[in-house]
Amino acid sequence: MAEVAARGLADVVAASTALSDIDGRAGRLFYRGYDINDLAGNSSFEEIAFLLQRGSAPDRGELDGYRAELAAGRSLGALVDADLDGIARHQQPMAALRSLVSLGSADDPDAASNEPAANLRKAARLTAQQPVLVAAYHAARSGRDLAAADPGLGIAANFLLQLTGARPGPRAAEIFDTCLVLHADHTMNASTFAARVCAATLADMHSAVVAALGTLSGPLHGGANEQVMRGLEEIRRSGGDPLAAVSSWVSRQLAQGEKIMGFGHRVYKTEDPRATHLRRMSAELAAQDGDDTYYQMSRRMEEVVFAEKGLYPNVDFFAATVYHYLGIPTDLFTPVFSVSRMAGWTAHIIEQHADNRLIRPDSEYVGESGLVWVPLEAR
Amino acid sequence: MAEVAARGLADVVAASTALSDIDGRAGRLFYRGYDINDLAGNSSFEEIAFLLQRGSAPDRGELDGYRAELAAGRSLGALVDADLDGIARHQQPMAALRSLVSLGSADDPDAASNEPAANLRKAARLTAQQPVLVAAYHAARSGRDLAAADPGLGIAANFLLQLTGARPGPRAAEIFDTCLVLHADHTMNASTFAARVCAATLADMHSAVVAALGTLSGPLHGGANEQVMRGLEEIRRSGGDPLAAVSSWVSRQLAQGEKIMGFGHRVYKTEDPRATHLRRMSAELAAQDGDDTYYQMSRRMEEVVFAEKGLYPNVDFFAATVYHYLGIPTDLFTPVFSVSRMAGWTAHIIEQHADNRLIRPDSEYVGESGLVWVPLEAR
Repeated sequence: MAEVAARGLADVVAASTALSDIDGRAGRLFYRGYDINDLAGNSSFEEIAFLLQRGSAPDRGELDGYRAELAAGRSLGALVDADLDGIARHQQPMAALRSLVSLGSADDPDAASNEPAANLRKAARLTAQQPVLVAAYHAARSGRDLAAADPGLGIAANFLLQLTGARPGPRAAEIFDTCLVLHADHTMNASTFAARVCAATLADMHSAVVAALGTLSGPLHGGANEQVMRGLEEIRRSGGDPLAAVSSWVSRQLAQGEKIMGFGHRVYKTEDPRATHLRRMSAELAAQDGDDTYYQMSRRMEEVVFAEKGLYPNVDFFAATVYHYLGIPTDLFTPVFSVSRMAGWTAHIIEQHADNRLIRPDSEYVGESGLVWVPLEAR
Repeated sequence: MAEVAARGLADVVAASTALSDIDGRAGRLFYRGYDINDLAGNSSFEEIAFLLQRGSAPDRGELDGYRAELAAGRSLGALVDADLDGIARHQQPMAALRSLVSLGSADDPDAASNEPAANLRKAARLTAQQPVLVAAYHAARSGRDLAAADPGLGIAANFLLQLTGARPGPRAAEIFDTCLVLHADHTMNASTFAARVCAATLADMHSAVVAALGTLSGPLHGGANEQVMRGLEEIRRSGGDPLAAVSSWVSRQLAQGEKIMGFGHRVYKTEDPRATHLRRMSAELAAQDGDDTYYQMSRRMEEVVFAEKGLYPNVDFFAATVYHYLGIPTDLFTPVFSVSRMAGWTAHIIEQHADNRLIRPDSEYVGESGLVWVPLEAR
């Protein structure tokens, strides 16, 4: 018998996973049994990608081997190189990444194989390439050459280097590395679920990742961090005291029944633990920057939204100002999310392929019935 | 409280739809309340695409207007044109279509809008472009120019014309048109569900269609029709009496615990009504062709599989030989499926955007817990 599930499959268990777990009431997040609060600041994105994709925390030798694999897998393929300039001129960032990752399968020697070893190799290459794709896209649309990666740096520092053309300070690189750790996986979020639905037909990893990228682009998912920053920018541009402007903007939005982006989450009933870390990093970067206006505006916004709606900030809210202070262009915030989430998506695809069943739900028919088809001539 | 659903969300209602309905016990399929048995042979693909996307059967004036919109929307964009040759040389058909449709958003003036009117226009353009993309890909990889479409022909006849370079006979065009009608929509199949998961983040139509294309490519979904033909080709190549070879091949596959592609369906408990129509068309084309070996082999295979497993052929089984007799290359069978299903995908995306809720299920954590993170130096 078909059972009618909640709209949007809220609270319906769609899959088992050993990758991440959320305790929504306590506001806790775990990657393979490790508390995100222990990982943030104490692990590199490379360690976390290894943990998610390969099952356990790497020792020194494993991590060195994985870093070498990432470095070797970083180069973009010939088809991507050939089409990059046109794409950078004509597609918005998330559409461009969707196209570029899709093209990337052409130069991946394992593209068509779902074998476990092939999937592990592809997961490493996709994780290594995603930051390069974002930086290469930005360089191409800006009409400059992509800065060469520094083999002595990790993914986080190399991304900032290749994106901005300038070597990041060590603290900026550390903070960005922690951002990547915080965004790496998050149970059955919409893009991860899309990747698993795709992979469950035994479609290949590139297809599933492309599905995830498209899904992440939506403003109700990865697009939210960009919307948060656009809101702050708009309020600041409106003039007057920015903190007072925040208060009146929030009240106006709520009065109009508009959602405030960056607040609330289907799973967390208290503060998202990632928001706690991002708030602290935003404060630190704001203090370094000398202009802490956006940070102060964010603080005011969370106070007002909590007072009026009882909603907590989610991962997108303070990520916005952190990325801003790191010099990342606002329209690349969602692409940056994908740089990190690539680790989780690929791990979920590996997990789905390893113990697969087609994900094919039922639907409830709510249309007309019993209609008689009249041929066109008689219609 | 989270409720644990069946694996693969079998029988879990994930969405409401007014587009199609299946009575799995009776073996019936309906599009917006019309029985597929009344539509097959009595409607054109254009009428069905209109019915699905716009809500009702078009009258003559509406259909003329829609046909004009399809004709105007058929041309591929500049970015697709620029990248087509490289893609055709370096990507397999379904990966190529994933890339090409993703690139296509660059030249769609409505790409970023989810407004109802924009979605209707995009649905028509995507439906018009998909057959041209498949034919253009095939022409490019074959090193020949794409044949010009004939403005006097419909989508089905023009596709066969552009794919093969030769004008199809009227009966071949009619049969292919019926194939497109039969494959246009099918409730919450995996690719349609992926499209809705993507669209439910308010991602745009191109993103959702690209997610669907990747999902369709899997051998447990759209890839099955190609697998059916590959099986028949392999058996025939093995020599000897092809019908006897079918019997022994099926027995061997079943003895090895292998799935026989093209049989069984999660929803139908009796024969898939689409298979009934496709069987009849396969018989007709086989008789015309003069070599009915593949049709006879298919008939034998369904007898043996039913005798041994009690399974009925599904939509993919007789589609394989129909497409073969129509002169479609085997590796384009799944792309041809996408030509038709584009009508359904786009209609589902329109429906999702019109009454949206984020599709974000829960997951059950099955990994380790309570692990203590030891910094790398101490690991």
